[in-house]
Amino acid sequence: MQTTNSAENDMFQVRKLEITDKNKGFIELLQQLTVCDSVSDEAFDEQFHELAKCGDGHIICVIEDYTSGKIVATGSVFIEMKFIRNCGKVGHIEDVVVDSVVRGKQLGKRIVDFLSDHARAMGCYKVILDCSVENIPFYEKCGFKKKEIQMVKYYV
Amino acid sequence: MQTTNSAENDMFQVRKLEITDKNKGFIELLQQLTVCDSVSDEAFDEQFHELAKCGDGHIICVIEDYTSGKIVATGSVFIEMKFIRNCGKVGHIEDVVVDSVVRGKQLGKRIVDFLSDHARAMGCYKVILDCSVENIPFYEKCGFKKKEIQMVKYYV
Repeated sequence: MQTTNSAENDMFQVRKLEITDKNKGFIELLQQLTVCDSVSDEAFDEQFHELAKCGDGHIICVIEDYTSGKIVATGSVFIEMKFIRNCGKVGHIEDVVVDSVVRGKQLGKRIVDFLSDHARAMGCYKVILDCSVENIPFYEKCGFKKKEIQMVKYYV
Repeated sequence: MQTTNSAENDMFQVRKLEITDKNKGFIELLQQLTVCDSVSDEAFDEQFHELAKCGDGHIICVIEDYTSGKIVATGSVFIEMKFIRNCGKVGHIEDVVVDSVVRGKQLGKRIVDFLSDHARAMGCYKVILDCSVENIPFYEKCGFKKKEIQMVKYYV
């Protein structure tokens, strides 16, 4: 495991997604995660504003490499309101990905920590996510434990 | 597996949660699922109205037993907006529970089908949920397949 130094920490700050990040490779980064067709500027802006309506209830964070001007890591978390656990809240982390060319700098952990801290600050009693078996060790290093089985039904 | 007849289907209609359902045993039903302290009328009303702000983006459905006037099954689904999959949407099913005294009437499947149909109608490309190993066969009967591993971090 490569360790980071303070210069790298300064270079890779976690911040919330901005509307101009589409021009900094945000969609291309998501394409490293899963099926993600190119998105028109209009569709991106519309989805960005839809998400903005949720305020702190649904955030996307990114890390920009200021030397290249590219978005190199991202992840999202949304806050679910429940009646159980005394009208409790749960954070759901989704779509965490780090650019393959900058892996090994613990940027993934910084993304997950940022999202987890946000969920905690929002009053969640827990934060959850689903991952592949091969990513379990990474999330264990982020303080997560195995719990249940994810089930899926596709419509298309 | 007990089969349902049309008289039972008429008796157990799925509908959205109403604010008066607190007085019909809704919270007591959730207590069969997990930790769920009693909720004051004020806290319930506040959470109900917070959820209502999400409109079709987050619904809770219930089945009321009209002979007893009790809520005997419930589940929820919320719609997550993404940038992947062409600005796609995913339905997240949570907190499915059937009153232990009316199990075997396929009420759980009717709840899950209702929530899954809602997610599909909202334009989701898939619907997901997390369950215990012992509940996998039930969700397979509802059309779901095993996919990933749920990871959790508790704050309290």
